Amino acid sequence: MRITILGSGNVATHLAAALKNAGHAIWQVYSPHLDHAALLAYHVKAEAVNDINAIKADADLYIISVKDDAIITIASQLAVEEKPVVHTSGATPLAALKRFGEHSGVFYPLQTFSKQKEVNFREVPLCIEAASESVRNILTHLGRDISNRVYEVSTEQRKILHLSAVFACNFPNYLYEIARGLLAANGLDFDLLRPLVLETADKVQHSLPNAVQTGPAVRNDEKTMQAHLGMLQDDVFLQNIYRLLSEGITKMKSS
Amino acid sequence: MRITILGSGNVATHLAAALKNAGHAIWQVYSPHLDHAALLAYHVKAEAVNDINAIKADADLYIISVKDDAIITIASQLAVEEKPVVHTSGATPLAALKRFGEHSGVFYPLQTFSKQKEVNFREVPLCIEAASESVRNILTHLGRDISNRVYEVSTEQRKILHLSAVFACNFPNYLYEIARGLLAANGLDFDLLRPLVLETADKVQHSLPNAVQTGPAVRNDEKTMQAHLGMLQDDVFLQNIYRLLSEGITKMKSS
Repeated sequence: MRITILGSGNVATHLAAALKNAGHAIWQVYSPHLDHAALLAYHVKAEAVNDINAIKADADLYIISVKDDAIITIASQLAVEEKPVVHTSGATPLAALKRFGEHSGVFYPLQTFSKQKEVNFREVPLCIEAASESVRNILTHLGRDISNRVYEVSTEQRKILHLSAVFACNFPNYLYEIARGLLAANGLDFDLLRPLVLETADKVQHSLPNAVQTGPAVRNDEKTMQAHLGMLQDDVFLQNIYRLLSEGITKMKSS
Repeated sequence: MRITILGSGNVATHLAAALKNAGHAIWQVYSPHLDHAALLAYHVKAEAVNDINAIKADADLYIISVKDDAIITIASQLAVEEKPVVHTSGATPLAALKRFGEHSGVFYPLQTFSKQKEVNFREVPLCIEAASESVRNILTHLGRDISNRVYEVSTEQRKILHLSAVFACNFPNYLYEIARGLLAANGLDFDLLRPLVLETADKVQHSLPNAVQTGPAVRNDEKTMQAHLGMLQDDVFLQNIYRLLSEGITKMKSS
């Protein structure tokens, strides 16, 4: 397929590379910043454009992979007809592309991407939604070309997925940062905790998290929890986090 | 070395196996429950005992690996002299073994262990503390026999490590559980999030967490955060967690 990518951020970059590696042609890369478009276009041997009117109408698929609040603007300016147009956003409904009618769809890779770090795309869950059977077919086949995990997910379910991802990714990363700060304040390196962080995530790859919960809260070990709160006495904010999450773990256990 | 293990839980089990694999002899395994002692003893070809007075005085090292609040009791009953005696607890001071004087030490593996799941012990940070140079030497060498990561960590630093581990392990696992619950309530499987969970932990193996924070809070994306809070409107407790952690991420960014 000839695929035009609108956007040059983390998702656009990883997705374009995965599609290219699977044998598809990246036709054009659009970004309002020509240097951004050119960098990605160079890697996937595409044409870079920074004028949305320069986007050719002869691609087989248009993927809008930009910040959530730019999707509607980009969509309103994209002058293609009778061609599938999809976005890649977890938080945006299919209806944001309603001007493309039955040609609209969603192609949402549920993963956290950084430009510096390679991701094995075959393990990335691809959540697809489509306004018609023909777009569904196209996205399903395209998804399977690059990933072993293709799911059909409605707009409502995708919203829940996106919210869950905040709990499963953004918030844990912030807790790692709290741990790093506590260590640093006491002359200890975050490297000491890295194996624990990885093993904690690895444990739930084949178990459910409630089955492998450890720590003082799930043991109702009040003495240790009080000692920890005492160590945090100069930081009421961290005490509040400690108390709230410990309370949640205790509730989880009893439910 | 001839090593006697007091305890038969997760840490005792993984540690005994690692020491055995490194060529050391596990001499005896003690547990008040003979069947627990016997199970571990069988795997490491040791003698199982459930009477603490049956512990022989001729081992080269005694490792007390029991629940924190049982360490002092076990230590008070262990009738060995002039032999190194260590515990494996993150939250317990070296002084809990003060009756062994200069022979006391700590051999704390900083990892989360489950009996069902293998761990690569060579990547487990071993935090050692010793009351004397001779015990320090023994523990350092023993540590290097089984791990590439041996650190000398004081009682005060170990307390901080243990607290940090709650933030880096126990609390993230609870957040995974929240995500699982949100998905389950909407007919979605936790499997959708597993690659994200693993990648989030993998990202900080070579980066610091504050450098790779993603999500609506770090972008100050109020619209998405309000939408998420709206989706949680029937669960004030989860709303509180969402608000508090998002506030922390915003603070982190501005600090």
